[in-house]
Amino acid sequence: MKMNTDSQRSPGRPKQAEDNLPVQEIILQTAAKLFMEHGYEPVSLQQIAKACNVSKPSIYYHFTSKPELFKIAVTTMFKHVHQATSRLLREADNLETGLLHVAEARLANPHAEIETLLREAERYLSEKQIEEIRAAENKIYIELADYFKDAMDNNLLRSNNSMLLAQTFSTMMVIGNKEDTLRAHDSTLNLGKEIVEIFLRGTMVR
Amino acid sequence: MKMNTDSQRSPGRPKQAEDNLPVQEIILQTAAKLFMEHGYEPVSLQQIAKACNVSKPSIYYHFTSKPELFKIAVTTMFKHVHQATSRLLREADNLETGLLHVAEARLANPHAEIETLLREAERYLSEKQIEEIRAAENKIYIELADYFKDAMDNNLLRSNNSMLLAQTFSTMMVIGNKEDTLRAHDSTLNLGKEIVEIFLRGTMVR
Repeated sequence: MKMNTDSQRSPGRPKQAEDNLPVQEIILQTAAKLFMEHGYEPVSLQQIAKACNVSKPSIYYHFTSKPELFKIAVTTMFKHVHQATSRLLREADNLETGLLHVAEARLANPHAEIETLLREAERYLSEKQIEEIRAAENKIYIELADYFKDAMDNNLLRSNNSMLLAQTFSTMMVIGNKEDTLRAHDSTLNLGKEIVEIFLRGTMVR
Repeated sequence: MKMNTDSQRSPGRPKQAEDNLPVQEIILQTAAKLFMEHGYEPVSLQQIAKACNVSKPSIYYHFTSKPELFKIAVTTMFKHVHQATSRLLREADNLETGLLHVAEARLANPHAEIETLLREAERYLSEKQIEEIRAAENKIYIELADYFKDAMDNNLLRSNNSMLLAQTFSTMMVIGNKEDTLRAHDSTLNLGKEIVEIFLRGTMVR
């Protein structure tokens, strides 16, 4: 039985690794990390298997193919980013704190710029797989856009296209990919503060 | 005779194509476009040769290897971006117009986010080649940072780390990679205006 979403589990195979994550989850997290770091083509299933301490056949036991593993790994990663973003914004006392926490989380986990990654991977993926990845990413933008829309309704942010603000904010986080920039700011927290300040001054009602 | 920089030319071979660009230039521009669109590994020398309407051996006549072609193509592209940025900023009447023109030019020519591209390519490149690419990119940041430093000295921008502003501004241009976002804003000019407004409000003295 092959899995298609990360909520399904193969019956009778509750394999657990040292840290108690099911093997399937370990494969997904490791694959996402490697794909995000090196791109699609340079990462082999062999390499993912080795990094997970499993055999290549056991990757094929859980996932039908490399494109399918890529799609599930990336959409699962986006789902986690979406959940974390939603929680951080909801738990924060105000707009600035919420954005700071999101920025800090994003900058601490720099990942490939998704358009660049998808262009490299697209000849291996079906249209449907690309669509599913974009849909998962889009949920993060929608979450942020809703948050910005509320802030506009409360007269905190200037009226603007809330989706554009969501994409602008997310794009600004790509600066976390620059290791030199991160190093120059001691911590992701400091860099996050600078970026959020520019964004908020740029978008707030004065 | 192999070339190492794009200012050298092989003596006695002033090959010209239809649009009068030397073959070498055509190869560089085509290679840069393809690498920026699909990444390093997915683009073959065969494909570049075909797109240039030349043979694969004639690529090897001008460039020693694929990594070397990649390095020269990308650094040459950065050199052009640097020159265009410098000219657009110098010719503009004020800060806002300068940034608008730079934004418009960047958004009209979306290209791969460089960190993501380099991570995919790095296992094929020598440290020296990566260094040369980073140095070429860095000149663009330095140009922008100097411009922002002047604006700070003239009390137009708040005191800030000018290099961080340069990298933030450049990172914001990565939004041009999102075709949906471009389409939603009718033109790169409109999108550029929105992004520059957020950046300037975010960084200007009030």
